[in-house]
Amino acid sequence: MHAITMREPGGPDVLEWSEHDEPEPGPGQVLIDVAASAVNRADLLQRKGVYPPPPGASDVIGLECSGTVAALGEGVTGWEVGEPVCALLAGGGYAERVAAPAAQLMPVPSGVDLVTAASLPEVACTVWSNVVMTARLSVGEVLLVHGGAGGVGTHAIQVGKAVGAMVAVTAGSGDRLARCAELGADVLVNYREQDFVAEVRAATGDRGADVVLDNMGAAYLDRNLAVLARHGRLVVIGMQGGGKGELDLRAMLGKCASVTATGLRYRPVAEKGVIVAEVVEHLWPLIETGEVRPVVHEVLPIQQAADAHRLLEEGAPFGKVVLKVR
Amino acid sequence: MHAITMREPGGPDVLEWSEHDEPEPGPGQVLIDVAASAVNRADLLQRKGVYPPPPGASDVIGLECSGTVAALGEGVTGWEVGEPVCALLAGGGYAERVAAPAAQLMPVPSGVDLVTAASLPEVACTVWSNVVMTARLSVGEVLLVHGGAGGVGTHAIQVGKAVGAMVAVTAGSGDRLARCAELGADVLVNYREQDFVAEVRAATGDRGADVVLDNMGAAYLDRNLAVLARHGRLVVIGMQGGGKGELDLRAMLGKCASVTATGLRYRPVAEKGVIVAEVVEHLWPLIETGEVRPVVHEVLPIQQAADAHRLLEEGAPFGKVVLKVR
Repeated sequence: MHAITMREPGGPDVLEWSEHDEPEPGPGQVLIDVAASAVNRADLLQRKGVYPPPPGASDVIGLECSGTVAALGEGVTGWEVGEPVCALLAGGGYAERVAAPAAQLMPVPSGVDLVTAASLPEVACTVWSNVVMTARLSVGEVLLVHGGAGGVGTHAIQVGKAVGAMVAVTAGSGDRLARCAELGADVLVNYREQDFVAEVRAATGDRGADVVLDNMGAAYLDRNLAVLARHGRLVVIGMQGGGKGELDLRAMLGKCASVTATGLRYRPVAEKGVIVAEVVEHLWPLIETGEVRPVVHEVLPIQQAADAHRLLEEGAPFGKVVLKVR
Repeated sequence: MHAITMREPGGPDVLEWSEHDEPEPGPGQVLIDVAASAVNRADLLQRKGVYPPPPGASDVIGLECSGTVAALGEGVTGWEVGEPVCALLAGGGYAERVAAPAAQLMPVPSGVDLVTAASLPEVACTVWSNVVMTARLSVGEVLLVHGGAGGVGTHAIQVGKAVGAMVAVTAGSGDRLARCAELGADVLVNYREQDFVAEVRAATGDRGADVVLDNMGAAYLDRNLAVLARHGRLVVIGMQGGGKGELDLRAMLGKCASVTATGLRYRPVAEKGVIVAEVVEHLWPLIETGEVRPVVHEVLPIQQAADAHRLLEEGAPFGKVVLKVR
């Protein structure tokens, strides 16, 4: 088969569409004929050599895909050859075929085409597990989403509204904020010109945010704690602004605040399976009614993976960039 | 009436048993004839002038008491004059009479005498709200309690065992650890001689602690994160080792860990009421069967409040120090 391979770690141009060994589905795994994959920020780090795949995972980049079931490994039940699926992957998505644990497969939500479905697994599992399962955002609360215009952000806005929360977002331009508002965002903060603490406090009668979904890590730690409401929950899922920062426990104690940091890729299959099952049970119906919809900036042929990486690195896409394999 | 008053902030000797205005029970409040109060570490800070009472609270020290209902403020139902009670207070416990919101009153658990009941409100509400309600310790998990020999610690050991957890404790001497073991502690760590991270990991097959109840704050932050199991929850309720420390978000993300910091005193009455109600519903029955028992180091007359403070400052008591008023 063909896959995107890397001569060596480096810039986007190290990515090449070339021959690669076929994966074999092990016990409990399913082999998928890939229709499409999608780009995640973690892919850029892996390409640079700083985010190695977990033990046992493919050396090929790609944390999600859609496609059809090609073969079942030993002991797999509940899936049939030829069935359309999408899947959360520990790697291997930028390829014609990938093997994944059956617990990480999801049906394609009705009304979503097979290529677009490749844009869903990472954002759906990330947002649902963090905002709903971990932070327990509930109706009437305030959710602040950093990076509101990104893949995770555009999905989180819609999930926040579906839960019945008020949603505040940060983004880097008025145009991107206007598109966040179209997705349902109530409070728009241009982080280049405004202080999100002051803006969110002003828009919420000084309540602040009950849940903050953060991709900046250390750089925003102080201000994220400052914007939290009493009993507020900060969930850190990315560290684009560094991994180590000073924590003011006294400020946290004063409002009974919490900080959680989570990653999806390195979790055991059983944990991913629990998240995937909750997503299919609770989020897929919201997608099937159109209350939450996939946000795809562009679909590029997989052979242009380098261009797709450049698109993310220059910070321009609104929503996900999908890589079409067939 | 008489109360413990302070000429000025300072050492234990500023505490004097002298005349003080009677409190009046406001709407929704109950006036209590105090039988006993108990000493908390926060009392020592208030005496030094660094932990002011919240707005509207008494200027008299004392965060808990037992006694009998003396009068009911406007709108109070469910309590009768003469009834024995214990209560969580925002202040005012070191006195012959105190007024408290009705929501913060609890019946005296059967089998506990009125003076001993003064030792329960703070430890019961602190441990139940943090270990059970916030950190959701559950059967089969591992709880690490720092300061296992203190008032909160001796109570947390017993609640941890009642929940069905394995309990590890830190304390400063073999004698104190032996007494923690009598209360049910499974893993004993002398913090003067041993590293709690290594000891807890060794005793749990490298799992670590699912929940850490911490009173040291910044000084233990790094090691508390290191000892956490996957999905571990660190709850900081004291900052004896400082309030600001470096947080390693990357290490947290790798195991999906969380840090929460909470205080009880500054919470609104409604929040305290929720905690008090859960304590009465779920913890009082454990006290009435003897599964969890009050641990009182010594009962001193209220006139010796200065001696009681010295006892806590020298770090010697095992469990609570009670101040008997009548």
